[in-house]
Amino acid sequence: MMAHPFKGLADAKVFPELVRLAENPYDLTGVQALQTDGRLARYVCRSELWHLHYGAERIDDSVLERLQELADELRLVEQFKMMRRGAVLNKIEGFASENRQVLHTASRDLFHTPPTELQASNEARREIEKLRTFLAALETGQLVNKHGQPFDTMVHIGIGGSDLGPRSIFEALKAYGLPGRKVRFIANVDPDDAARVLAEVNLATTLVNIVSKSGTTLETLTNEQHARLALERAGLNPAQHCIAVTGEKSPMDNPGRYLRSFYMFDYIGGRYSSTSMVGTVMLGFYMGFSRVMEYLQGAAIVDHEAEVTDIRKNIPLLLALLGIWNHNFLRHPTLAVLPYSQALHRFPAHLQQCDMESNGKSIDRTGADVRSKTGPIIWGEPGTNGQHAFYQLLHQGTEIVPVEFIGFRHSQYGMDAAVGGSTSQQKLLANLFAQMVAMAVGQPSDNPNKKFPGNRPSCCLFAERLTPKVMGALLALYEAKIAFQGFAWNINSFDQEGVQLGKALATGFLRAMSDPPSTDETLEKVFMNQLFAMPERQ
Amino acid sequence: MMAHPFKGLADAKVFPELVRLAENPYDLTGVQALQTDGRLARYVCRSELWHLHYGAERIDDSVLERLQELADELRLVEQFKMMRRGAVLNKIEGFASENRQVLHTASRDLFHTPPTELQASNEARREIEKLRTFLAALETGQLVNKHGQPFDTMVHIGIGGSDLGPRSIFEALKAYGLPGRKVRFIANVDPDDAARVLAEVNLATTLVNIVSKSGTTLETLTNEQHARLALERAGLNPAQHCIAVTGEKSPMDNPGRYLRSFYMFDYIGGRYSSTSMVGTVMLGFYMGFSRVMEYLQGAAIVDHEAEVTDIRKNIPLLLALLGIWNHNFLRHPTLAVLPYSQALHRFPAHLQQCDMESNGKSIDRTGADVRSKTGPIIWGEPGTNGQHAFYQLLHQGTEIVPVEFIGFRHSQYGMDAAVGGSTSQQKLLANLFAQMVAMAVGQPSDNPNKKFPGNRPSCCLFAERLTPKVMGALLALYEAKIAFQGFAWNINSFDQEGVQLGKALATGFLRAMSDPPSTDETLEKVFMNQLFAMPERQ
Repeated sequence: MMAHPFKGLADAKVFPELVRLAENPYDLTGVQALQTDGRLARYVCRSELWHLHYGAERIDDSVLERLQELADELRLVEQFKMMRRGAVLNKIEGFASENRQVLHTASRDLFHTPPTELQASNEARREIEKLRTFLAALETGQLVNKHGQPFDTMVHIGIGGSDLGPRSIFEALKAYGLPGRKVRFIANVDPDDAARVLAEVNLATTLVNIVSKSGTTLETLTNEQHARLALERAGLNPAQHCIAVTGEKSPMDNPGRYLRSFYMFDYIGGRYSSTSMVGTVMLGFYMGFSRVMEYLQGAAIVDHEAEVTDIRKNIPLLLALLGIWNHNFLRHPTLAVLPYSQALHRFPAHLQQCDMESNGKSIDRTGADVRSKTGPIIWGEPGTNGQHAFYQLLHQGTEIVPVEFIGFRHSQYGMDAAVGGSTSQQKLLANLFAQMVAMAVGQPSDNPNKKFPGNRPSCCLFAERLTPKVMGALLALYEAKIAFQGFAWNINSFDQEGVQLGKALATGFLRAMSDPPSTDETLEKVFMNQLFAMPERQ
Repeated sequence: MMAHPFKGLADAKVFPELVRLAENPYDLTGVQALQTDGRLARYVCRSELWHLHYGAERIDDSVLERLQELADELRLVEQFKMMRRGAVLNKIEGFASENRQVLHTASRDLFHTPPTELQASNEARREIEKLRTFLAALETGQLVNKHGQPFDTMVHIGIGGSDLGPRSIFEALKAYGLPGRKVRFIANVDPDDAARVLAEVNLATTLVNIVSKSGTTLETLTNEQHARLALERAGLNPAQHCIAVTGEKSPMDNPGRYLRSFYMFDYIGGRYSSTSMVGTVMLGFYMGFSRVMEYLQGAAIVDHEAEVTDIRKNIPLLLALLGIWNHNFLRHPTLAVLPYSQALHRFPAHLQQCDMESNGKSIDRTGADVRSKTGPIIWGEPGTNGQHAFYQLLHQGTEIVPVEFIGFRHSQYGMDAAVGGSTSQQKLLANLFAQMVAMAVGQPSDNPNKKFPGNRPSCCLFAERLTPKVMGALLALYEAKIAFQGFAWNINSFDQEGVQLGKALATGFLRAMSDPPSTDETLEKVFMNQLFAMPERQ
């Protein structure tokens, strides 16, 4: 096969022109700067479920035109299409690597005939039918515990991609639960995490859902063991309470030990697996099958929309390019994602994984050192809470932090009250909009402490209401954004070799901890002698 | 009074020498680099409750000596002593500013006679006695609801400093609750936040603790109103269920409306208020008076320790200087705080406020532009979860992120099981140590994707077990670190003018939302017309 046919950002013909434009980016602080040329109206990208407002970014039409050239030259949409159609994109040319397709999009490609990639969609369909049957058996009372009681609780055990995505979506959609259904999560190998959750649930009516693609994840197997011991101590048979979500033929693929087994596939990376069985078994238990299908449909809609080549009509692509503008050209090392919705309070933690594990890389797809910065540091908390926390630094600090705001016209519960002439939802939105304007426009003052420099870029993703469908769309939108950025940097966004060294070294430390004391001064021993050299007390 | 007598980092005589040393910082990747000159043993600072291991920072003895000179020249400890003794440090010389003392340390100065600052400690003592009496009345059944039932639940309503600190400490000490006691929190103005919590508690046996220093915080008053309406709908009298924590003479200081009122004082900033009534009313309700006193004592111990001038014997001072080394000299814009303890899962969110709201500033204490970078961006999640999320970027990304790890020798619950020959607690610690080594030492490889550059600095705070006392100490340790850094940058770490502009603009948006439609095209109207220009659907 020929050398890798794609190039990266620093090799793009349009790169020097973007560098030049970045020397003098659009000034948001001028009088009427936000209203010039109707930019608030023109810099909006509208799709079926989400709108992106980007008039408060430091861009103008010339920057947008150059970013379009960049997208075209680097063939970003073409690569996205290849990805959805089964190309082996998870690889490093010329070196041992995972060598896999990247087909998380197939897990929700259930709404068009024919689907984009037939085999993976068929596998997804097979699993979703198993899930439908399982949920119906719970619903009709066909599947109950040994006392004939319905299962009302699920403990979801996973870590990383088997935890952060599913958990953040569960939190986002908590308002949509079936009556009486509860879900709890265990992720950390910290024994207190498992102890707390297992002590708080009624094990007799609990299903334990163990999620590990490889079936070998240390933390998850340890926590499964804690759960099985707790079930046994309660006089229950673990095989009648445990469910597995794992790869076919993994060590966990052992139906004798599990009430049900659902499969995921090696072409779906952990951090992209929230629309596979990794997320949907738990979400289906909690909110029922039809709402899971709405969630998947929202994601499928965005996957389809992301194939448009015009950057002004493709939200994830535009978001990717604005991110590259802020990170590579304006040189801002971080990105804050600030949802004005308490329900999305764990969504930034999911994005930390999905984005930083995908794009925190230093070599390109041929194994050469990358010649540009790659993924930024992603962080965030919900507004308005954050306003009372770290926004001081966003407005007046010496580090400039680009922001992606997320907002909704309506609240989920619709329980609200007017206090001081406005509802809470109105206050929430007024704050979101005010922050965008304050960061962009700033404020002069004779008192230096009341001076706001402005020119701090932001954009806003806006939707009607946080429903299952809108949540699925938001998830897919960020997955596509991350893929587009990875393509632009010409890196492999789909492996995670950087987590291996720590794992390997941990084994050495565990060995040193269990070994009998010796005079053999390994680094591990020296290290731990120091750390443990404090007297036992308290 | 004479001009401000302190100077900042960039004016220090030793500054150029530190710049020079930073051109060639200690190489952690060399063979045996971590063991040279016994650095793992020498670079440990031990205090009563915490140890700081800093052998994996990119420093050596010359850097430490220069940092000591810096601390001396900038009179960091002297300023900390002045702060604890009541100096008016919350001000900008020559400009309108808050002009206040900074005496959060007095709220726990209850264990020495005489205390460091008499008046503030007396006020703290008066409030803590009120709390003791209140908790005893709950304990003995003297204070019950109208049906004679004990109160078993507290809903804590606050935002920012009245939420993040108290909530993260509650989460950290969840293992220490009195039997049957429950605490829930409402912070966000998002109406779904309040709706969810109020629907889940038994209001008849619930105390609602409303916390606002000013008594005017929009979000908190709105949520108080939601809670009062819910109590009334349940046939309960809000005045018999609501408690106030507020400033004396604030609009909320109205005993007729509250079952009890506790005071805080204008010399305690919101983000430093977790050891005042802001935190202790809720913590006392949850875990009882004696454990609150242990928590306060832990903080008091650290306040005392922080007055030592030798940087190698003063953990918060050393942590502050290592942070300045990484941020100002090695030019790393962020800092990750990674606790290997699920109980500390919200502690980084508290630090985001405490640190970034304090030190995200651009002017010095005379109103001049600062000539160095000030506060870094703080972020983090618990390990090992983070290992399965963003550690890829920490190991192989193009951004270098200094790390402060936090670990404990023992778990809190002591419920653990050996799986595969080691306990969960052993696995947790093995992972923490392995990450420090992996980030520092790195790994060469013929496969570029398995290459780890190393030289990514970290340190580790280590304690025996996360008890109330150890938690109080950790809180105070970071508060002191943040104060030391603010002194070093010569900024006012105790105001937050940067949050005002957004608040002011939000009022304009709220007005535009409630006004009848007009052709008056304010920026607010234009903005919202765009945001709301999507059809109602779903």
